[in-house]
Amino acid sequence: MHNTKTYVKLQQHYAKQQTKTLKDLFNQEPDRAEKFNLKVNGLNLDYAKNNITSTTVDLLLELAQEVNIVDKIKAMFHGQKLNNTENRAVLHTALRSKAQSIMVDGVNVMQPITAVLERMKNFAHKLHQNIHLGYSGKNITDIVNIGIGGSDLGPNFVCEALKPFRKNNLNVHFISSVDGYHILDCLNSLNHETTLFVIASKTFTTQETITNAHTARNWFLNKTNNNKAAIKNHFIAASTNTQAVKEFGIDPDNMFEFWDFVGGRYSLWSAIGISIILYIGFDNFEQLLSGARDMDQHFLNTTDLTKNMPVILALIGIWYINFYNYSALVISPYNTRLKKFPAYIQQLEMESNGKSLDKYGNSINYKTCPIIWGDSGINGQHAYYQLLHQGTSIYPMDIILALSDKYSNLEHNQILQANAIAQAEAFMVGKTFDQAKAELIQQNYQGQNIDMLAKHKMFNGNRPTNLLTFNEISPNTIGNLVALYEHKTFVQGIIWQINSFDQWGVELGKQLAKTILHDIQQQKASEHDSSTTKIINSCIHNK
Amino acid sequence: MHNTKTYVKLQQHYAKQQTKTLKDLFNQEPDRAEKFNLKVNGLNLDYAKNNITSTTVDLLLELAQEVNIVDKIKAMFHGQKLNNTENRAVLHTALRSKAQSIMVDGVNVMQPITAVLERMKNFAHKLHQNIHLGYSGKNITDIVNIGIGGSDLGPNFVCEALKPFRKNNLNVHFISSVDGYHILDCLNSLNHETTLFVIASKTFTTQETITNAHTARNWFLNKTNNNKAAIKNHFIAASTNTQAVKEFGIDPDNMFEFWDFVGGRYSLWSAIGISIILYIGFDNFEQLLSGARDMDQHFLNTTDLTKNMPVILALIGIWYINFYNYSALVISPYNTRLKKFPAYIQQLEMESNGKSLDKYGNSINYKTCPIIWGDSGINGQHAYYQLLHQGTSIYPMDIILALSDKYSNLEHNQILQANAIAQAEAFMVGKTFDQAKAELIQQNYQGQNIDMLAKHKMFNGNRPTNLLTFNEISPNTIGNLVALYEHKTFVQGIIWQINSFDQWGVELGKQLAKTILHDIQQQKASEHDSSTTKIINSCIHNK
Repeated sequence: MHNTKTYVKLQQHYAKQQTKTLKDLFNQEPDRAEKFNLKVNGLNLDYAKNNITSTTVDLLLELAQEVNIVDKIKAMFHGQKLNNTENRAVLHTALRSKAQSIMVDGVNVMQPITAVLERMKNFAHKLHQNIHLGYSGKNITDIVNIGIGGSDLGPNFVCEALKPFRKNNLNVHFISSVDGYHILDCLNSLNHETTLFVIASKTFTTQETITNAHTARNWFLNKTNNNKAAIKNHFIAASTNTQAVKEFGIDPDNMFEFWDFVGGRYSLWSAIGISIILYIGFDNFEQLLSGARDMDQHFLNTTDLTKNMPVILALIGIWYINFYNYSALVISPYNTRLKKFPAYIQQLEMESNGKSLDKYGNSINYKTCPIIWGDSGINGQHAYYQLLHQGTSIYPMDIILALSDKYSNLEHNQILQANAIAQAEAFMVGKTFDQAKAELIQQNYQGQNIDMLAKHKMFNGNRPTNLLTFNEISPNTIGNLVALYEHKTFVQGIIWQINSFDQWGVELGKQLAKTILHDIQQQKASEHDSSTTKIINSCIHNK
Repeated sequence: MHNTKTYVKLQQHYAKQQTKTLKDLFNQEPDRAEKFNLKVNGLNLDYAKNNITSTTVDLLLELAQEVNIVDKIKAMFHGQKLNNTENRAVLHTALRSKAQSIMVDGVNVMQPITAVLERMKNFAHKLHQNIHLGYSGKNITDIVNIGIGGSDLGPNFVCEALKPFRKNNLNVHFISSVDGYHILDCLNSLNHETTLFVIASKTFTTQETITNAHTARNWFLNKTNNNKAAIKNHFIAASTNTQAVKEFGIDPDNMFEFWDFVGGRYSLWSAIGISIILYIGFDNFEQLLSGARDMDQHFLNTTDLTKNMPVILALIGIWYINFYNYSALVISPYNTRLKKFPAYIQQLEMESNGKSLDKYGNSINYKTCPIIWGDSGINGQHAYYQLLHQGTSIYPMDIILALSDKYSNLEHNQILQANAIAQAEAFMVGKTFDQAKAELIQQNYQGQNIDMLAKHKMFNGNRPTNLLTFNEISPNTIGNLVALYEHKTFVQGIIWQINSFDQWGVELGKQLAKTILHDIQQQKASEHDSSTTKIINSCIHNK
């Protein structure tokens, strides 16, 4: 990115722009609300409360053009091997496509995709119609998803967001950590005759997932007097390792595959979505795919980039990360059902773009992905917003809000909305010393230290926010929203010239964990630094 | 802090220290594991994997002495009004004290503290012995805590951490957001005859909490044919507003007070802990207080600051924030029961120290509290650790791990431990290009791009971690752990010369929300910037 021509222009522009406050910008351009607003598929992005002018947007778009973003988008959708370190195509968009054919290495990937979807649909139908039953003939009441990372965060977020759409009053549980308490506590609450376990692991070798899967299997066998034939009624898999799945006791008909062009953090649309399908039904899952597909079409076809929502969202991020040097982005969904969205986006962006080499392996000298964090916004107001308003650094925020909610009620919903909107306003306008002092006088404040107190009640403001709104939380809007951030992540990766689709950074820890596990099990520390050796010995003596 | 003499010395020291890697330090000082290790009340802090030498620690301690930390600690424990903007003492430590007397404004605060504890003990006894029953004579089975911020995060974290200690198989639910879905969905799952609501709001006016409380009350009255007399069996309060509590229908005998010397984020030890007491019993709550008290005594009495754990933990933070310019701290508990600890510490530190004025109201020109964020560590490994290992910025991490767990099992627990330890090692040692390439050759890698791939498999390492371990999760260790971070926060606030005990930064949003709620309800936007007006109008037309 530092090697682009536009970078220098943006730096020069930044030098001028940084002296202007958001309040200045609104005073100068009262029509910002119309100018910096995009509506796509019912999703509304108000990006007026950012430290940008039309010049900023023009220059950022020039940057996007300089890295050939439109061609890169096409390349992704058409199955080019953008994941160069693993020599893989990047085709999570194919999972929700209606195309007849998308070719990778001479194979039309749409055929297996459609086939697996069809098989998942049939399995869900059998479960929901109580044709697929527990081994003792009872209806399934509980789904337990055993998976970690992308095999957990996506399904978990979506199921929680779409709970009002659930079928047959089913319960869903997510077991991810290898902490034995997590699964044992969950198993304690379940009836083995009415529980279906979904083992979600592409290779069927993920340490945490397979350890948990075997613990669930042992629990089940223990409850059924070692009835191994019954396993097939109660365990299914999202995996590609037929051999291991079969050995586990799962019916290969109940194994749903996905492919190496689907990264873990982009996999909720694939067989990893089987828990979603079982929970909310295949029809709603299709709506989820359809929402994502709408965003895909918008992203691919809106070649006037000023109107391309993922591109705009990505460029605003670039502006803050690479010019303002802001080191984090806060994600603040206001609806409780979206509480897990920040954790989902955290993996999506940080695992995709938390890199410091370009895709060819060269070191880069600019910042890439910032910290992505957040929680329910209304809860944040009573926890960490203090720092966001009055701390020593500025952190931009994406506020996300559904405008109607038939599962809430008018009074609650209006209070929720008022708070979301008020925070965006407060972050921008702040409060001056004079205003704070005038308020104290008006409140008849009698203390001697009125100036000191007014200073503490002062807010610098000038904190930017994006406001993303939509009519209501539905499978369609969730699909839309997730795809928006997927494509935002893609655009930033292209601008940073990195490979957003590998994750070599997770390997070293796994490798060292193997050695240390062996040390602990053999009760003898191998060679480490003195601090690592000390704690290994503590584990050995504490066991 | 920039006005201290030691600051300049630390700057000079930093200039030399920053060129050294953690690996260098361990090579030079093999005894670091012993030297940089503290054991207090069963809590072990290994701080050897930090970019520090003995000189660093000495200089940081000199800084602490220069700001008179020992006197400041005493002042807090003795009830001095350190919260100067609100003219309040800071006495969460009194809530767990065994002192006969702590005087504030001529009043011994130990008397009301002991009296309220006794009343909570009696109420819990009656509930656990099924003497306090629902209005129709049934046992209470479900506790619903309605509160937000400090009235939610502390009890929620502690109840989840100590679930194995629960009494009578009680369930506990936490309602915090004003999103109506949150409470309506919870109410749907409850039996009004066996549910007890705890309304946790000091003033009994917190908008979110009181809105939820009234929704719960309406639900209850609706289920009981408007039986107002029955309210007293099903609603209790942690509050000080007797009048409002009485009007709500709560028996004043079931209102538990706390005081203005207890800040919200320090209140789990007070009446705000009533949900904890009901869930795990008063005996276990006493153990929680006792664990915190042990840390208090250590903090207050360890005047050899090299051995004072909260002081050391605080100073390491100062070193990274103010010299290395690291903008965030990751909290990584490895045990699932501690999953909510990062959110708890997030409020504790960010609301306390997210300030940019000193306590007298002067602007400061150094960084204060960083972003505090995190999640279950083992889950983080499969989500955002990629960025922590290979991203463009360094973020220190506190890893927290219980060494034994009778609620897990040996296999799961050993894998969990191995992962926690391996991550600390991996963050520190990294992997060189030569190592990565040698591994590829050993794996018989045949591709042409071996150098490119080896570069992507490289880790710079030199990422610092603290490792906090203890034997097992118990009320006592949780008390200890929370008090450790409370005091860490205190020390950092003193060094930054700020008031850690007010939170003026939450006021502006509340104030503007009032106006906007009025606008929405009256269906007419008052004067705002064009972006705020636009979204208010959308809310009006969407209702």
